[in-house]
Amino acid sequence: MKLREQHKTFGGYTEFWSHDSEVCQAPMNFAVYRPPQAEKGPVPILYYLSGLTCSEENFILKAGAQRIAAELGLFLVVNDTSPRGVIKGENDSDYLGAGAGYYVDATEQPWAKHYQMYSYVTQELPALIQQHFPVDASRESIMGHSMGGHGALTVYLKNQQRYRSVSAMAPISAPTLRYDDGGGFPAYLGADKTAWEDYDAHLLVEKLGSEKPILFCQGADDELIEFLMPNQFLAAAERASATVDYRLRPGYGHNYFYVQSFIEEHLRWHAAALLA
Amino acid sequence: MKLREQHKTFGGYTEFWSHDSEVCQAPMNFAVYRPPQAEKGPVPILYYLSGLTCSEENFILKAGAQRIAAELGLFLVVNDTSPRGVIKGENDSDYLGAGAGYYVDATEQPWAKHYQMYSYVTQELPALIQQHFPVDASRESIMGHSMGGHGALTVYLKNQQRYRSVSAMAPISAPTLRYDDGGGFPAYLGADKTAWEDYDAHLLVEKLGSEKPILFCQGADDELIEFLMPNQFLAAAERASATVDYRLRPGYGHNYFYVQSFIEEHLRWHAAALLA
Repeated sequence: MKLREQHKTFGGYTEFWSHDSEVCQAPMNFAVYRPPQAEKGPVPILYYLSGLTCSEENFILKAGAQRIAAELGLFLVVNDTSPRGVIKGENDSDYLGAGAGYYVDATEQPWAKHYQMYSYVTQELPALIQQHFPVDASRESIMGHSMGGHGALTVYLKNQQRYRSVSAMAPISAPTLRYDDGGGFPAYLGADKTAWEDYDAHLLVEKLGSEKPILFCQGADDELIEFLMPNQFLAAAERASATVDYRLRPGYGHNYFYVQSFIEEHLRWHAAALLA
Repeated sequence: MKLREQHKTFGGYTEFWSHDSEVCQAPMNFAVYRPPQAEKGPVPILYYLSGLTCSEENFILKAGAQRIAAELGLFLVVNDTSPRGVIKGENDSDYLGAGAGYYVDATEQPWAKHYQMYSYVTQELPALIQQHFPVDASRESIMGHSMGGHGALTVYLKNQQRYRSVSAMAPISAPTLRYDDGGGFPAYLGADKTAWEDYDAHLLVEKLGSEKPILFCQGADDELIEFLMPNQFLAAAERASATVDYRLRPGYGHNYFYVQSFIEEHLRWHAAALLA
């Protein structure tokens, strides 16, 4: 564990860390925001999973989340979206390799050894956070944006006892319907689509249902909306009688101007569950 | 005038524009935030001058200012800090050339033809903003960070009737005391320091005084504080009986984590004057 940078922010600290990941067999980076309340005792944890091409920096620099986390006393954890510097050609595509881990455990070559992002965000990273920071391990929630929204939904749906709340901003909702033409899913999981089903949000919500309401936020002018397929998720959730609080935002796109506009609603959604 | 990008943000629009500058004889970029109130009629203008190495993007992406501007109804204007792509070697230094215009009108070669940033931010850009956007030209204020804090102070001090309020975050305060070893001032203005005095905030406040109180904010752990020399400005202001509301922030550095932590105070300071 190496602290690379620490910057006072809204009375707390934004920190950039690196460590050697066992499950990814590679160095990994993450960022945290340590709210002022953490000086006095353990605070709840909100995991934020970022989207394609992002590192641990995008959200922590652009979303304006620290202001609200400082008010609410939430410890933010923002992982990088893949290992980096370990596989030849990893930077050749925005949709595969570095910056595009999709929060799956890869089974195919050359990715399988290092791209174990599902295990990383559900096991290794939380263990590290609990060990090294003043957090209350019994209070965890998860959210994400775009590919990270897919991650947050799938991680939550498969671990519903663990997370107190979940939310997604403009998530990829139905990857089994979208990756026939290549991209991360066939590359990481192989051509057999049955292996993809374990990471498809719309299939998982239909199969597993949802104990808790899901906050699902989407810009109506999102330029990627045909790729994201929110309606597939909403229909599947309805078939499973899962409660989705769907908030469509007229005029908003897919970028961090959209994220910063609505991040406060998401943090307050999670705080209501985490601080209950 | 070319609109490069428009992104809905907090109910208004973040926009990136380009135009051919007459005073700089070069293409120039700027960003604006058009608050929701601008749909209904002219709104007051707050100019933000960025620091060394910044473009028009840094503040608009990282400061979290749109949220507050949307609440208060302020039209934000963020210029680029220099022309770009016009002078050979302009990217060789962080302290000179592209990203480092210092808000002075250069008199020395090879800069004089294009680096007319004082005239650009005091004349050409405001005229353009007034012509093309729904703003109230009688209500203008100015602020800046670092090199842009130097810009905001010097521009205000020489045009006190024009700006309703001024504030600076971690500004360069006394460039005549700091540039003997090179950098922008000798390169743009020549070796004769008398030419520098017209752009030195601590000399200008002593010479001209200040009609209005100056909000001056500084991180106490700013890694550049010996270069910035805030105490020189404070002492000069005191000799001139100028009122400075000096806010020293324990633990904060020079970066946008500091800026985002205090931007709300600055926008409210300006709104109090602009909306009076």
